Amino acid sequence: MTPRPKAPAKKVPKMNEEVTPSVEAEALSRMNVEALDVILGQRFDVLDDGFVRVVDYMGSDEAIVQAARVSYGKGTKKISEDRGLIRYLMRHRHTTPFEMAELKLHLRVPMDCWRQWIRHRMASVNEYSTRYSIAIDAAQTTAPGEWRIQSKGNRQGSAGFLDANAGREMTQKERELQELSRRTYEERLEAGVAREQARKDLPLSTYTEAYWKIDLHNLLHFLSLRMDDHSQAEIRAYARLIGEEIVARWCPFAWEAFNDYRVGGMALSRFESEMMALVGSNNVDGAVALAQEHGWLDRGAKGGFLRNRERDEFEAKLGRLGFSIPWRA
Amino acid sequence: MTPRPKAPAKKVPKMNEEVTPSVEAEALSRMNVEALDVILGQRFDVLDDGFVRVVDYMGSDEAIVQAARVSYGKGTKKISEDRGLIRYLMRHRHTTPFEMAELKLHLRVPMDCWRQWIRHRMASVNEYSTRYSIAIDAAQTTAPGEWRIQSKGNRQGSAGFLDANAGREMTQKERELQELSRRTYEERLEAGVAREQARKDLPLSTYTEAYWKIDLHNLLHFLSLRMDDHSQAEIRAYARLIGEEIVARWCPFAWEAFNDYRVGGMALSRFESEMMALVGSNNVDGAVALAQEHGWLDRGAKGGFLRNRERDEFEAKLGRLGFSIPWRA
Amino acid sequence: MTPRPKAPAKKVPKMNEEVTPSVEAEALSRMNVEALDVILGQRFDVLDDGFVRVVDYMGSDEAIVQAARVSYGKGTKKISEDRGLIRYLMRHRHTTPFEMAELKLHLRVPMDCWRQWIRHRMASVNEYSTRYSIAIDAAQTTAPGEWRIQSKGNRQGSAGFLDANAGREMTQKERELQELSRRTYEERLEAGVAREQARKDLPLSTYTEAYWKIDLHNLLHFLSLRMDDHSQAEIRAYARLIGEEIVARWCPFAWEAFNDYRVGGMALSRFESEMMALVGSNNVDGAVALAQEHGWLDRGAKGGFLRNRERDEFEAKLGRLGFSIPWRA
Amino acid sequence: MTPRPKAPAKKVPKMNEEVTPSVEAEALSRMNVEALDVILGQRFDVLDDGFVRVVDYMGSDEAIVQAARVSYGKGTKKISEDRGLIRYLMRHRHTTPFEMAELKLHLRVPMDCWRQWIRHRMASVNEYSTRYSIAIDAAQTTAPGEWRIQSKGNRQGSAGFLDANAGREMTQKERELQELSRRTYEERLEAGVAREQARKDLPLSTYTEAYWKIDLHNLLHFLSLRMDDHSQAEIRAYARLIGEEIVARWCPFAWEAFNDYRVGGMALSRFESEMMALVGSNNVDGAVALAQEHGWLDRGAKGGFLRNRERDEFEAKLGRLGFSIPWRA
Repeated sequence: MTPRPKAPAKKVPKMNEEVTPSVEAEALSRMNVEALDVILGQRFDVLDDGFVRVVDYMGSDEAIVQAARVSYGKGTKKISEDRGLIRYLMRHRHTTPFEMAELKLHLRVPMDCWRQWIRHRMASVNEYSTRYSIAIDAAQTTAPGEWRIQSKGNRQGSAGFLDANAGREMTQKERELQELSRRTYEERLEAGVAREQARKDLPLSTYTEAYWKIDLHNLLHFLSLRMDDHSQAEIRAYARLIGEEIVARWCPFAWEAFNDYRVGGMALSRFESEMMALVGSNNVDGAVALAQEHGWLDRGAKGGFLRNRERDEFEAKLGRLGFSIPWRA
Repeated sequence: MTPRPKAPAKKVPKMNEEVTPSVEAEALSRMNVEALDVILGQRFDVLDDGFVRVVDYMGSDEAIVQAARVSYGKGTKKISEDRGLIRYLMRHRHTTPFEMAELKLHLRVPMDCWRQWIRHRMASVNEYSTRYSIAIDAAQTTAPGEWRIQSKGNRQGSAGFLDANAGREMTQKERELQELSRRTYEERLEAGVAREQARKDLPLSTYTEAYWKIDLHNLLHFLSLRMDDHSQAEIRAYARLIGEEIVARWCPFAWEAFNDYRVGGMALSRFESEMMALVGSNNVDGAVALAQEHGWLDRGAKGGFLRNRERDEFEAKLGRLGFSIPWRA
Repeated sequence: MTPRPKAPAKKVPKMNEEVTPSVEAEALSRMNVEALDVILGQRFDVLDDGFVRVVDYMGSDEAIVQAARVSYGKGTKKISEDRGLIRYLMRHRHTTPFEMAELKLHLRVPMDCWRQWIRHRMASVNEYSTRYSIAIDAAQTTAPGEWRIQSKGNRQGSAGFLDANAGREMTQKERELQELSRRTYEERLEAGVAREQARKDLPLSTYTEAYWKIDLHNLLHFLSLRMDDHSQAEIRAYARLIGEEIVARWCPFAWEAFNDYRVGGMALSRFESEMMALVGSNNVDGAVALAQEHGWLDRGAKGGFLRNRERDEFEAKLGRLGFSIPWRA
Repeated sequence: MTPRPKAPAKKVPKMNEEVTPSVEAEALSRMNVEALDVILGQRFDVLDDGFVRVVDYMGSDEAIVQAARVSYGKGTKKISEDRGLIRYLMRHRHTTPFEMAELKLHLRVPMDCWRQWIRHRMASVNEYSTRYSIAIDAAQTTAPGEWRIQSKGNRQGSAGFLDANAGREMTQKERELQELSRRTYEERLEAGVAREQARKDLPLSTYTEAYWKIDLHNLLHFLSLRMDDHSQAEIRAYARLIGEEIVARWCPFAWEAFNDYRVGGMALSRFESEMMALVGSNNVDGAVALAQEHGWLDRGAKGGFLRNRERDEFEAKLGRLGFSIPWRA
C-alpha cells in the first residue's frame, strides 16, 4: 500500500525552515504570471508569414528564487530580495535555478531558419510532419527592398541592400521558382507519389510549424546567440521577439539581469586586461610595446597594419569605453 | 520596433487547421489538471523521514496529444481519440510528445538514495547545499525488523530479513554510529571548521532535499528502471509513490499505457521468439534441439544443467505464459 | 605545484583489483580495432551522391566490458567472458557502458534526410555552412524507376513504384526544377546577394556535409529507429550502412546483441501476454472472450471486424510465432 | 545488398575541396597525441588517496580545426592557421568544434567530492557499485594542519586553518569516527546484511572510483567552474590537475585559448562598462554620481558604505586594471 497524501504538515522540516515556507500555507497553488496569461495563445507575427505563440509555461522569476533558496537555505534571507538574488545568480553564472522555469511556444518558421534553430539541442520539439501531412502551402518571400548584399568583411554576414530594380527582378524570379516548386510538388502528389518523397524538392523557404519547449536557462543561451548582430536576420527577428515580447513579460527580473550581464556586457581576455591596465594608466609606450610583442602591430608591404581580428575587436572595446587607441595616436 | 501581440487570428493557418484549434478560442488558458491541483504542495511520506511534494507542473495527457497532432496533422482526427493516440505513441515508442509535459517535485531523500537518483541526467536539480547551510539533522534509520539479508542468487539484491535479535543489535549500533557522526559534525562546526569540510564524514544516510524537475518521457524512463524489482528498496519506494500517487493523477492515460506496454509487458529476443514458435506448436524435440545448439542445456560434472541466465529468464517467461518447459518434461 | 605523473603503480588499489588490470601493464596503449582501422577514411556510397566515412573512434567492445567491470567489480570475473557480459547488459538495458565507445563520421546527406537525422539530439555536429561557403552543387536525384507510391494503409509510408512512363516524366521535371533552383541561386550570388539569403530557395534535396560524433548507446538508439521498416527509405539506407558496415566491424559483440535483443526481438504488452497465455493453452474460447472484452472484435455495419491497430499487430505476432488466430478460426 | 567500402575516391567533392583533404591520402589513420600517449594509464595522485588516469581519448586540437573547417569551408584556409582558428572559436564561443575531442578518465574520488562532480550532466559515467561489491576500504583523511576555518565573508568558503592543537584533536576524532564507521559496515556484512543496505552509514569521505568520459567543450566548462577559487578545495585539486597535466598535453592550443579568454578574462556588465568609460576619462564626479544613482554608495547608520556585492566586485576589477576607485579618493 502506498502512502496517501496528507494535509500540509503543521511544522516544517527542522533544518530547512526558510526553504519551504509554502508548506505552511493552507492551499498551495501554481505559480502564474498575469502579464503572460493575457497574451497566451496570441500570435506575434514574424517575417512575412511566420509567428510565435505562447502555449504554456511553468514557473517565473519566483521559481528561480525558490530553487536558489533550496541551495542556499536560511542564510540568504536577509541579503537577497528576489531581484538582487536573480542578478547575483546571473552574474556568477549559477545556471541551474534558471532551468526551473519552462516555456512552450508554437512556432511557424521557414525551414531554412528552422535548420539553425534545431541546432539547439536542449529543447523538446514536435514538428509538423510532411511525411504524414501535405506540406504547408506557404514559402517565405522577399520584398524587392529586402535583398541583402554579401558583406565583404564578414564572410557570413550581409551589408546593405540591392537597389530597387535589381531587387524587383530577384523578387520576380523568387516567385517563379517558388510557384514551380509548389506546382511540381502538387503534380507529384496527384500522380500518387508518396508525400515523404514528393516533398524532396520543396524550397528551404517553405514554412514549417512546431511546438518548442525549453527551460529559461537554455532559452537565454539561445537568445544570447540568436539576438546577436552576427546572427542571421531571419532567426534574429524571432529571437528578439521572443526576448522582448515574451521573456520580458514572463520573467522580468531575469530578463533585466540577462541584458545587463550577458547582452550588454563586455568580455576582456587576459591579454586585453593587461592592455587595458596600461591604457588606463596612460602608459602609451608600454601599451604599444606590449601590442607589438603580441603581434598586433605587424605591418604589411605598404606599411599599414596587417589585418588582425583580435586587435580590431580590442580597438572597438577601447572605443566603447572612451579610450583612445595608443597605436593610432 | 518589435511587433505587438495581436488578438487571436480569426482564420487559422491554411494547411494546419486541425492542429491548433485552440487558436480560435477567445481566451486561451493554461492546461490544468484538477486531480493534481488538489494535492499540490502536500507531503507524501516515504521511508522514515523522507517525502515527495508536487511543486508545479506543465501540461497533461492533453499536452501529449496536442504535440502529437502537430506532427500528424489533419489525418489523425478520426481514428484517434486521446486515449487511443496516447496508447499508440507509447506502443511505438514515439517519445517526443511525452516530453511536452513537465513536473517539478520537492524531495527529501537520504544521500545514499540520492546518489542513485542523480545518475538520471535528463532532469533539472537544485539541491540543499551543505556548503552554504548546516546539514539537515536527520539520518535514515532502520527498524529492527528491516535489516535485509544479502541475496545469494543476485549479487546486487537482498532476500528476507535478519531475525529480531540480530536486527535489534544492528539498529542499536546504527543509532550509536549516527549519533557519533552528528556529534563530530557539530563539534567541528563549533571549533570553527568550514561547513564544506565539516560535512565530510556525515553518513550516507543523511537526508538531503532538492527540487527536481523532469519531463514526462524522462520521468517514465526513471520510473521504469526504479519501480522495477531489481531496483533498491529505498529508491523503489520513492519511484512507486511518484508513479502511483502523482503520475496516475496527472496523466492517467499515459500512466495506463506505460503500465500496459512498458511495466507489464514482456520482451522476447530474436532467439526466444524462435524458441517460442517451437514451444507453441508443441514441437518439444525441436525446442530441445535448438536450446542445445544454443548452449542452454550444457551439463556439469554432476549431470545437472549448468547455470545459464538467459535460459532461466526464458523459463520464467514460459511459466508466465502457461507453457511447460520442454527440457524439464 | 601540481603533482607529476608517476610510473604505473606496482600495486593496484586494494578493493579494486580486477577492475583495472591495465594499470599493471608497463605500457598502456589506446584500444584499437583493426577491422575498423582498415576502412578509416574510406567512402561508403549511399543514394546517388551521398556517403559515410569513419573519421575516428574511441573504444570498442572492450570499452563496454571495461566500464561494466568498474561497476560490477570483482564478482563478474568468472561468469562473464566479454560476449556474455555484453549480451547481459544489452538484454537488461544497462545502457551506460555503451556510452563509453564513441564514433565520428563524415556524412554527405540530402538536407531533407538531414532534417530527420538532426532530430537525434545526443550527438555532436558540425555541418557545412552555406552562410559561410557556397552551397554544395549537388541535389539528390530520383531515377525513373524509384518514384514511390503513397501507401494507403500507412499515412507516412510508401508502397510500390510509379510505372516507367510516369516515372520518366517525374524525373525530367525534377531535373528542370533542380536546374532552375541552382540557376536562381547562382544568379543571386552573381548579383551580390548574401550567401545566407541566396540559399533560401534551394531544394531540400540539396546535399550537405557534416561531422557527426555520437556514442555507441545513442548510435544504437538512432539505428533502432532508422533501420526500422517504418523509417523513410533514404535515412534507412544510411542507417543500415552504418550498422552493417561500420558498427558490425567496430563492436561485433554489441552489434550481435543489438540485433538479437532489440532489432529481432518482439515486445508483448501486458494484455498481449495474457492473450498469449490463453492461445498457448489452446483456450480458444477464453481468448476470443478476452479479445471481445478488450474491444478487439467489434464489428461494423457490414459484419466485418472494425479496424483495430492493436489487434492487427497482435495477429502479426501470433503469425510470427506460428500460432493460429483464435477469432479467424 | 549493402555497399562495400571503396578505395578512397580520387577526386574529392567539388564544393568542398579544402574541407576533407584527408580523403586524398592513401592511408588515413587516427589522430593521436604523443604527449598524451606517454602518460596513458599513469596515475596522477590527488588528495591523500585519490587519483586521475587517462584511459583513452579521441581527437586533439586538430579535431577542433577539422570540425570548424567543415563549417567554414574554403574560405578559412588563408587567414587561419590552427592556433589562430582555435583562439577565434574560443573567443566567440563557437562551442561545437570543441565537442569533437573526447577524453576518458579513471578517477578515484571521495564520495563527498563526487557528489559535486556528478552534477555535471554532460558526461558518461560508470561508477564502482557498492551494491555489487564491497565498498572501497579507504576514506579521505585530514592532516592536523589541513582543517579549514569557515569564512566569514563567504558563506560557502573557508579561510585559513585551525591551529595545530585543535587540528590534532580533529584528526584524532576523524580517525575514530572513520574506524567505527568501517567496523560497523563490516559487522553488518558479517551478519549477512545486504551490501546495498550495509553501506548506508558509510561516511561521505569514502573513496569511490569511476570511468568518466566527456568531450572537450563540456570538460572546459567543468574546469572553468571547478578550477575557480570559489570552488571547494578538494574538487579544485582534481580540476587543476586535469587541466594542467592532461588537457595542457592533449590540446595545447585549446588549453592556451581557454586560459586567455575564459580563466584569465574579465567580464564587465553593461553598467560596469558605463562606469569604466567614466573612470577611464578621469570623470570622477560623473562616476560617483552614476554609482550613487545605481545605489552603490548608500551609507549605513555609522556613515560607512553599506555592503554591496556588485560594488565590491567592480572595485576589485578597477584594482586589477590599475585604476583608482573614484569614491575612495
